[in-house]
Amino acid sequence: MTSELVFVGLGLSGVDGMTVKALNALKECDKIYAEFYTSNLIGTEVSDLAEFIGKEIHVVYRSEVEEGHDIIEDAKTMRVAFVTAGDTMLATTHVDLRIQAVMEGIPVRVFNGISIFSACPTCLGLQPYKFGRTVTLPFLERNYQPKSPYDHIMENKKRGLHTMILLDIRAEELRYMTAKDAIEWLLAGEEKWGEGLITDKTLLCVVSHAGAEDEKVVAGYPRDLLQMDLGAPLQTLVLPGELHFMEAEALVDFAGAPEEIIQDDE
Amino acid sequence: MTSELVFVGLGLSGVDGMTVKALNALKECDKIYAEFYTSNLIGTEVSDLAEFIGKEIHVVYRSEVEEGHDIIEDAKTMRVAFVTAGDTMLATTHVDLRIQAVMEGIPVRVFNGISIFSACPTCLGLQPYKFGRTVTLPFLERNYQPKSPYDHIMENKKRGLHTMILLDIRAEELRYMTAKDAIEWLLAGEEKWGEGLITDKTLLCVVSHAGAEDEKVVAGYPRDLLQMDLGAPLQTLVLPGELHFMEAEALVDFAGAPEEIIQDDE
Repeated sequence: MTSELVFVGLGLSGVDGMTVKALNALKECDKIYAEFYTSNLIGTEVSDLAEFIGKEIHVVYRSEVEEGHDIIEDAKTMRVAFVTAGDTMLATTHVDLRIQAVMEGIPVRVFNGISIFSACPTCLGLQPYKFGRTVTLPFLERNYQPKSPYDHIMENKKRGLHTMILLDIRAEELRYMTAKDAIEWLLAGEEKWGEGLITDKTLLCVVSHAGAEDEKVVAGYPRDLLQMDLGAPLQTLVLPGELHFMEAEALVDFAGAPEEIIQDDE
Repeated sequence: MTSELVFVGLGLSGVDGMTVKALNALKECDKIYAEFYTSNLIGTEVSDLAEFIGKEIHVVYRSEVEEGHDIIEDAKTMRVAFVTAGDTMLATTHVDLRIQAVMEGIPVRVFNGISIFSACPTCLGLQPYKFGRTVTLPFLERNYQPKSPYDHIMENKKRGLHTMILLDIRAEELRYMTAKDAIEWLLAGEEKWGEGLITDKTLLCVVSHAGAEDEKVVAGYPRDLLQMDLGAPLQTLVLPGELHFMEAEALVDFAGAPEEIIQDDE
């Protein structure tokens, strides 16, 4: 029998957000596993996906993927797909699964999906070359707030770089951090550490449902954004660094940023 | 009549590398413009693409896109698509075109494509969160070698971050910088500036034809890589920063990196 493990990124939204080649590969698989705890497919139910591909989908939880046992065992004698929202291989557990497959001599193919890593700059018209390291903000637990995300954004800012700020997801608890939570996180951090990362005049950008039909893109100052409708999770926050003239223009035109961000001296 | 400008990223390789929703959108367009000077669709001719979509494709050159006149004029009275390899909106001229459309009141839709920005970390099993700013290496002209790429990679390295190094493309002259050119570039830079960015024991990763069926992924030391078959352009070079245990394991298993990069003290 065929032995194979096929990794597929489904993209950000809708059953039709995957590539044509990924769809064709999935149709040829004997069994499809899916995890939605590292990200979620916007506006889509698992049943929609199963119908679109024409195959049953086995949703697996974090612990099952981390163990990997069933998936690897099945892939020894079948063509097995492991699908995720966004791109594949961007979470450590996916890489671990692939390493296990290689160790077992199971052939692997990878079908990339649209990722927030390119969709987010695209939505905003910000140059992807000017993003520094990406930061993830965690939910505050018992009021413990780690300083490292604040420091990492600050390091990027000092170098004139943009920061993409990913927001915590606990899909198994149906908890998705919102952009407003994230802005409050940064304001609380500023109050605590006071290094000038975020002031009343710091421009922030919010992308909700990137790439979906109901995508929403907003740019503005922190206190203004907290008063506005920013859409629903999944959301991404961006703290821009120095803006090229064209980037500033794009933020005004695509995201409604205040016109004063366009410097007259260009 | 319908007025619309639809931006589509075709992905990295093959006609089937675009998303299902992008394909459906293209089938509904009245006119399709394509530019292949910022990137190229691996293993695919324009005629294959035209046949796959079932529409004629008008290939445009850099100057025509920068001017934008025909595209914008057509989009006032038709549903016009502007397609590129990789993702869309990652080049300044795309953003400029979109700004012009917004200014003219032309409705815009964006269909993301698979980008090297997520495919490259995926191929290698490197965590995307640990990449610093991306660098582009230019062809050396009259032996002038700018120092900024060297400095930017160095800054990333000092912070333990990986650097994705994009290689110069002059599609209109059919010139594509190779990974070997890029390694020579770095070695020449080291000889000139001597700040210890690259030594005989600096691990480098080369990704050729990312996401294509003939994708090739190799990791090794500079002098060894120069002796090996690294595949053909389009290629991307990565200079990794500090490696997590799982990343080191992945580079050994997926890219044939020397086993000594796996630290025993983990």
